[in-house]
Amino acid sequence: MIDKRKVNLNADMGEGFGAYDIGDDDAMLEHVTSANVACGFHGGDPNVMDRVIRRAVERGVSIGAHPGFNDLWGFGRRQIYMSPAEIETMTAYQIGALQGMATAAGTRVTHIKPHGALNNMASIDRSLADAISRACKAVDPEIIMLATTGSELLNAAMAIDLPTASEVFADRTYDDQGNLTSRKLPNAMIRDAAEARAHALHMIEHGEVISTSGKAVKVLAHSICVHGDEPTGPGVAKAVREGLEAAGIDVVPLPDVPLDH
Amino acid sequence: MIDKRKVNLNADMGEGFGAYDIGDDDAMLEHVTSANVACGFHGGDPNVMDRVIRRAVERGVSIGAHPGFNDLWGFGRRQIYMSPAEIETMTAYQIGALQGMATAAGTRVTHIKPHGALNNMASIDRSLADAISRACKAVDPEIIMLATTGSELLNAAMAIDLPTASEVFADRTYDDQGNLTSRKLPNAMIRDAAEARAHALHMIEHGEVISTSGKAVKVLAHSICVHGDEPTGPGVAKAVREGLEAAGIDVVPLPDVPLDH
Amino acid sequence: MIDKRKVNLNADMGEGFGAYDIGDDDAMLEHVTSANVACGFHGGDPNVMDRVIRRAVERGVSIGAHPGFNDLWGFGRRQIYMSPAEIETMTAYQIGALQGMATAAGTRVTHIKPHGALNNMASIDRSLADAISRACKAVDPEIIMLATTGSELLNAAMAIDLPTASEVFADRTYDDQGNLTSRKLPNAMIRDAAEARAHALHMIEHGEVISTSGKAVKVLAHSICVHGDEPTGPGVAKAVREGLEAAGIDVVPLPDVPLDH
Amino acid sequence: MIDKRKVNLNADMGEGFGAYDIGDDDAMLEHVTSANVACGFHGGDPNVMDRVIRRAVERGVSIGAHPGFNDLWGFGRRQIYMSPAEIETMTAYQIGALQGMATAAGTRVTHIKPHGALNNMASIDRSLADAISRACKAVDPEIIMLATTGSELLNAAMAIDLPTASEVFADRTYDDQGNLTSRKLPNAMIRDAAEARAHALHMIEHGEVISTSGKAVKVLAHSICVHGDEPTGPGVAKAVREGLEAAGIDVVPLPDVPLDH
Repeated sequence: MIDKRKVNLNADMGEGFGAYDIGDDDAMLEHVTSANVACGFHGGDPNVMDRVIRRAVERGVSIGAHPGFNDLWGFGRRQIYMSPAEIETMTAYQIGALQGMATAAGTRVTHIKPHGALNNMASIDRSLADAISRACKAVDPEIIMLATTGSELLNAAMAIDLPTASEVFADRTYDDQGNLTSRKLPNAMIRDAAEARAHALHMIEHGEVISTSGKAVKVLAHSICVHGDEPTGPGVAKAVREGLEAAGIDVVPLPDVPLDH
Repeated sequence: MIDKRKVNLNADMGEGFGAYDIGDDDAMLEHVTSANVACGFHGGDPNVMDRVIRRAVERGVSIGAHPGFNDLWGFGRRQIYMSPAEIETMTAYQIGALQGMATAAGTRVTHIKPHGALNNMASIDRSLADAISRACKAVDPEIIMLATTGSELLNAAMAIDLPTASEVFADRTYDDQGNLTSRKLPNAMIRDAAEARAHALHMIEHGEVISTSGKAVKVLAHSICVHGDEPTGPGVAKAVREGLEAAGIDVVPLPDVPLDH
Repeated sequence: MIDKRKVNLNADMGEGFGAYDIGDDDAMLEHVTSANVACGFHGGDPNVMDRVIRRAVERGVSIGAHPGFNDLWGFGRRQIYMSPAEIETMTAYQIGALQGMATAAGTRVTHIKPHGALNNMASIDRSLADAISRACKAVDPEIIMLATTGSELLNAAMAIDLPTASEVFADRTYDDQGNLTSRKLPNAMIRDAAEARAHALHMIEHGEVISTSGKAVKVLAHSICVHGDEPTGPGVAKAVREGLEAAGIDVVPLPDVPLDH
Repeated sequence: MIDKRKVNLNADMGEGFGAYDIGDDDAMLEHVTSANVACGFHGGDPNVMDRVIRRAVERGVSIGAHPGFNDLWGFGRRQIYMSPAEIETMTAYQIGALQGMATAAGTRVTHIKPHGALNNMASIDRSLADAISRACKAVDPEIIMLATTGSELLNAAMAIDLPTASEVFADRTYDDQGNLTSRKLPNAMIRDAAEARAHALHMIEHGEVISTSGKAVKVLAHSICVHGDEPTGPGVAKAVREGLEAAGIDVVPLPDVPLDH
């Protein structure tokens, strides 16, 4: 007899700044089991971070660092060219800042998932992926790298023995190579809750994703991501979680997922 | 037979930003035994912080957080009115950021000393002093608060049992009440190395400072501060250290000073 | 036979930043006749400013500069202590930036109204009021200062012969001295559209405001302000405009209001 | 009989920020005839800008906008990927800000020269070059675009009939294609004043530059640039100016140079 399968449900959070809000963090925290918390560079500020961390603690949601480029104007979505050494210090700074605030709130930072352009660049540029991974290892060798299967970021983290978790997206479609469909295409996002639930459940139960052309492509999923900055985010998160639980799958904080590859 | 007296010598550091420099950190690190490292808000960035931390480690200099207002334009010297709750999260964030980078460099943050307007305001406003102290206690209850004797900041830290160190200034003059002479007065700064050495030595050996009017005022000094942003800073630091050592006083990192009051 | 009375209806706009939005600028621009456009310091960025300016031009809405403290985190609502000389250059910079963008869009900046804490401080501190007025005069001696009757800002502008417009608030209550009721009190804001319409109409038709205690206090109103950052803002603006027009009052851009005092 | 040849001497200035300084603006202003003034994005703030503008006015030095990426941390030297529309509004904003401050100081902005990575990217990417040129044209159709011969930026400006000035560098070496030698090479900079003087004089008198391999390459020079952020900057600027004047060439503000191509 084997254990019930365990999977994580994550979302980006705490991306407001000062008087500005993005997404409904409280609604998302009702459904996800891990929160990727912005660290004050592309979004977030100490007040916002504190609020999200404390709410996550109340709800048993695990906390991860969501570091980004220091570009509030571009919300961390603009590519900025910095040296790997600079990426490394910038990452260590952001993880540390969140760790300090997590400690103050009586919890710990257990994973990291880079944001936006930093994540995209590190997915394909090994030197940036290595820099981010080195920062993680140096700040906390137990921290879990949450990244896409096959990305250079996941490879880099594995190469230095960081724990790694592979993620899939409940609300994004995939192409025949198993890559995310470009956001420029109209069918990139899945905003229908029932569709997202079926999409996510298929990936978890069958270890494969059905591409937009109908092809089955193998995927590995320790965690499922939903986007909180979409108005449909909380509804999608709720449906995905309910779908998984109805199928007998435990939806748990990231550190409770067996991270076998 | 009693132990040789131990005292600390501290300076603010890492206050450059990007392409900009202020002060000669490397020269100061030749002489001081503790570095108050800017945390990226009023000055400093992850690259600058990393460089200072690693150099400090090489030289056996202890590291402290030097948090300030988020005001690079005003170099943290402008009073900004924020709520105590905001001061608290802002302080936790900055300590955490430096801790992350210190861990990455194989060392620890052992003290805190707020910067500029934040320090001035917290010296006289107990609600801000309490907020800063709460942040310190929550992030690291062992962290040493470095502040001026009689300041509300020192009082607030003591009230919640944080370790506290009282500091005096080798390069600043004092009035008859034991307060620093206003920087608006021409005799506020002591830039002559021999004079600063004598000034500091008198405070350590006699537990009193001679005011500008010639009066002796009691002071308690676990640590002596010198200003690195003055061109005369490294010379003053060198003279003060040599003067203390010639008098048989050990000049040590802050955690090695007995913090009795 | 006299001319129909003319009055202006203004609101703060363009206070979003990057991916962040505050208020519904498009909805407000349906109703107001002047827009106070944030200039990138407390809110706003070149993209947001450009969008608001062009939309205002399309709708015949006049443009004013809405300069604030360089404090996006605090949304310009935190008091920051800067010298009058610094306030002066900061104001000139922000007016100029908006002028550049207005010129690019084929229009002109015809008024100024400082934002948040800067406005509050300049209302009571004559040295700041003088600094802001000097900047206006030096950048454009024809620019209209939009401020509250009796404020030091209005006095300072008058003293150097800037055109001045006195404003009242359709959605704020007043005390017996004619000052705005503190926002800390529950009755500070008027969010009911009909009530705001009656409040505004009374001020325009009778030259007096009825205070929260029922007392009539004289007011001078060239312009009526409504707050766009309240969800009720567009509804209030619509009601106030309709009420004024139904009473035979022309609601016009600020430069078309006779600025007699 | 023909007029004495006229040429301009320009340098980047006002790149300090708050308490931070870069370069010796006052020393450079003794020698150059046009100042490219940072506009607060990659460097510069309203106080610094005001100081440089007023000093330039005193010395008869013409003023140009020196817009850059909004990246103080990277000093505008990091490539940031923004859309052409965003580059356009960002440029209009920065020119306008400087215009406002120039007007306040009784002068005008007569040219523009983008900074760092923005300049480098616009030199080779026509869509960015077009965006910057459109902003210039919309804000002031008389503004002179100062750029390198053959760059897309110069081409783009010419294509919409902006006045254009071609610049060469007194303190940089060139390769056989007439491009600047990479800064990564040891011989990229000319820091010897006599050498820079000879280098500049040859370009002006012969309309050609001698490359590092000894080849003569045609160049067009309405303006000669010297770098003020090098410690040797003021000495180089002085030598170049003296060399030109000794050769009977007038060194004049940019608007006084005949801009024939």
